[in-house]
Amino acid sequence: MRTIPITVRPLTEQAFAPFGDVVSVEGAERRLINNGSTERFHDLAGIDVSEGGGRAIVSLFRGQPFAPPVVVAMMERHPLGSQLFYPLSGRPFLVVVAPDEAGRPGEPLAFLCPPGTGVNYARNTWHHPLLSLEAVSDFLVIDREGPGNNLEEREYPDVRYRIDAVAP
Amino acid sequence: MRTIPITVRPLTEQAFAPFGDVVSVEGAERRLINNGSTERFHDLAGIDVSEGGGRAIVSLFRGQPFAPPVVVAMMERHPLGSQLFYPLSGRPFLVVVAPDEAGRPGEPLAFLCPPGTGVNYARNTWHHPLLSLEAVSDFLVIDREGPGNNLEEREYPDVRYRIDAVAP
Repeated sequence: MRTIPITVRPLTEQAFAPFGDVVSVEGAERRLINNGSTERFHDLAGIDVSEGGGRAIVSLFRGQPFAPPVVVAMMERHPLGSQLFYPLSGRPFLVVVAPDEAGRPGEPLAFLCPPGTGVNYARNTWHHPLLSLEAVSDFLVIDREGPGNNLEEREYPDVRYRIDAVAP
Repeated sequence: MRTIPITVRPLTEQAFAPFGDVVSVEGAERRLINNGSTERFHDLAGIDVSEGGGRAIVSLFRGQPFAPPVVVAMMERHPLGSQLFYPLSGRPFLVVVAPDEAGRPGEPLAFLCPPGTGVNYARNTWHHPLLSLEAVSDFLVIDREGPGNNLEEREYPDVRYRIDAVAP
């Protein structure tokens, strides 16, 4: 089995756009509300879960930490809904996504997601399960509950990808 | 104008139930996922925003801190959608809600929401705007975007309520 090293890149809205939203106050529309006592950074991510009679739910994910080398052997996607991860830990985490190639995940791209920044995987986007770093880390997650099969998993059949360093 | 002191009570699921969800891992259904590397605390809050063609959006609120005495002169509610606040700051905040009395807010109840715990105001529930404590504090907010008027505000006409201490 071949092993291909992949490099980690900084997370930018532009680079991540094909895969979903970067959830961050950077560049967001700001509204002063509540008689001036609150600043609202408006509409950082849209939740797309109504396909097939779904509804949005909020959960908390507690992830064990990973450390390099991180081997990427499989990817998953949710055909019926977006899935948003917002870090509660103050620590960075790794985001690994891939374009679709005829119903299978293509070559993965890895991003370092800095503290205070989340991601919202668009519906049906290949992504790796949660890759916390440094310590056990909590995330607020917004995804879909409802009828239908909302999980598809695929192993890479003849290759492994390996992340040797998490710094971009 | 009369001023009535109100006491702050601890936030419990039972006491808050008429007003919405307490968003906490306490008592939540736990699922081990991602080949055992992630613990999912499942479905801590349901998002109720589809009324009138609405959709869920995620925003970040940055609230100025309040300190006692906190005067409660008005309340607001969102007739078309729930609104969830999850603290990102590691600090407590105050939650003030009220039953409806013929289309106006009744006597308020105040709760101290501890770090790591959020609330999801049910649709059309009277609540006070964000009351951060101690320092400027960020919250992840899930509420509704869409057509229609989703904000109703009411002053208490002949009374003020006053919170003199935040500890329950």
